[in-house]
Amino acid sequence: MIQTPIQKLEFPNDRGVRLYCKREDLLPFSLGGNKVRIGRAFFQDMQEKNKDCMIIYGNSRSNLCRVLANLCCAEKIPCYMICSSEENEEQPIETNNSRLMKWLGAEVIPCRKTEIAQTVEQTMNRLTEEGYHPYYIFGDKFGTGNEGTPVQAYVDGYREILAWEKEQNISFSHIFAASGTGSTQCGLVSGKLLEQGTEQIIGLSISSREYDRATRIMESGISDYFAKNHLVLPEGWESELHLEMGYRQGGYGQYDERILQVIREEFCRNGLPLDPTYTGKAFWGMKQYIEEHQLQDCDVLFIHTGGTPLFYDCILNDTDGGKK
Amino acid sequence: MIQTPIQKLEFPNDRGVRLYCKREDLLPFSLGGNKVRIGRAFFQDMQEKNKDCMIIYGNSRSNLCRVLANLCCAEKIPCYMICSSEENEEQPIETNNSRLMKWLGAEVIPCRKTEIAQTVEQTMNRLTEEGYHPYYIFGDKFGTGNEGTPVQAYVDGYREILAWEKEQNISFSHIFAASGTGSTQCGLVSGKLLEQGTEQIIGLSISSREYDRATRIMESGISDYFAKNHLVLPEGWESELHLEMGYRQGGYGQYDERILQVIREEFCRNGLPLDPTYTGKAFWGMKQYIEEHQLQDCDVLFIHTGGTPLFYDCILNDTDGGKK
Repeated sequence: MIQTPIQKLEFPNDRGVRLYCKREDLLPFSLGGNKVRIGRAFFQDMQEKNKDCMIIYGNSRSNLCRVLANLCCAEKIPCYMICSSEENEEQPIETNNSRLMKWLGAEVIPCRKTEIAQTVEQTMNRLTEEGYHPYYIFGDKFGTGNEGTPVQAYVDGYREILAWEKEQNISFSHIFAASGTGSTQCGLVSGKLLEQGTEQIIGLSISSREYDRATRIMESGISDYFAKNHLVLPEGWESELHLEMGYRQGGYGQYDERILQVIREEFCRNGLPLDPTYTGKAFWGMKQYIEEHQLQDCDVLFIHTGGTPLFYDCILNDTDGGKK
Repeated sequence: MIQTPIQKLEFPNDRGVRLYCKREDLLPFSLGGNKVRIGRAFFQDMQEKNKDCMIIYGNSRSNLCRVLANLCCAEKIPCYMICSSEENEEQPIETNNSRLMKWLGAEVIPCRKTEIAQTVEQTMNRLTEEGYHPYYIFGDKFGTGNEGTPVQAYVDGYREILAWEKEQNISFSHIFAASGTGSTQCGLVSGKLLEQGTEQIIGLSISSREYDRATRIMESGISDYFAKNHLVLPEGWESELHLEMGYRQGGYGQYDERILQVIREEFCRNGLPLDPTYTGKAFWGMKQYIEEHQLQDCDVLFIHTGGTPLFYDCILNDTDGGKK
């Protein structure tokens, strides 16, 4: 049912690298993005567990929160968003995603980053007392226990890519994608393990999450998914987790002029909307990686994981249009 | 190559009307929309006529100008935009499209609505003196002579719809779309005439253009297209031009709370982004039409003609989130 286009991009370089882009930003619900697939997986899990209200967590830029609030609103499920601000922000900033949250009628519960667990617990307790059966997407109050749930979304996504490669007789040497929570990467890697793919799947970390914690979460996501589905993990599967930490630019939501320059360039050259938090940062990281690792004469896929509302936030704040 | 999804929308009504939406907003270039197809037709025409610079006309909300400036920028063709303000605006307002025009490097030439012809002429003369061979998309300085050029774009679009109907075994009774310049409607109607379709194609006027002028322009677009392609127009073809004038809300860019309400509702219900200038106004008009004409037990297609930047303009200005 879901199927997004893969398009060839103009990608001038002297390495013979041909670049393709899977346009997950064009998924036809709630402004698109990888979180449409991932949000649906969580929503379905909530229904299967016979829960009747949804607790989500994120910050005011969160695409996953927007998509989940939209699914809840459409299906008339009450939705509560625990909303943290970043370390460099006094309180949650206003963004297109936070503006849309108001339309979607989710109750936003502001929260310090150090108080997430207790806020989740308080909210769970309150809703239970009110007679609800709340579902917290990330599992327990510490955010663990539900890592396997969203993995299927990008096992499916991986299979779409594989079908496209066969049809076009193209074989990708590398697949790049922004990696935040790691759900997309977990799915892609699981898909590769199941289908015995040969490309390298490279996550470009966009957050301040530490390497060990990030890979540990992905490892439990993948093993949880395989266990739930009674599948056997092949020997040495952990070596398939490539997470690049060198292009994070200081952490979540942080960026500099080089990233803005890539965003403007890709819009002008390919009509492609990128944003400074996820896809623009990852695209810039991919370009660096291609040079630093001297990729040569190969077909590379960039997964546009979406978040178009953040592209528009970026336009609005780019008041000088790059002319300074 | 180009193919956009048609999706079924949730559309609660007691008339037995089933609503589908063709997501032209998801065309994978320059933020999508019908103007991607139409802009490409103009751009190709410019190339075929061996011109080497582009003069376009529109206001600061113009999606066509954004797409054309993007095509020009990608192909390194100089682009000049003659930009008028609406009667109710002192000068061109700032919008997402006007912000993107700065990125795209088009030279913007502000102009009163009463001075378009002379500004086009002056710009043509200036560029010719500079050694260019300029192309004005709308033909002569009065904006006529090129009506047939963009028609093919939605003959192709119509054929996509037809193929989908056959595949799904669904037959649309009506196709609705916003009608501004009329290019999309010209193409759809031409497609219907060529393929002997049976549905009603209904344009919902969103501008202050008068009925007679609007239908005259469409008539010359269609007859010009048929003549250029050596095709014969069937007897009585003019009766296929249905242009509804009753849902314009006072003219281009004008809207009221009822339209904003539809925009919020469709986002919440279907995750669909609409805007108050084109698609939201047309969607509201279609809903009115369905009631007023008592459509019953039928399959209806709404063409989402895009303009997502205008959806984000709308979010930004909808400061109270409909709570007033």
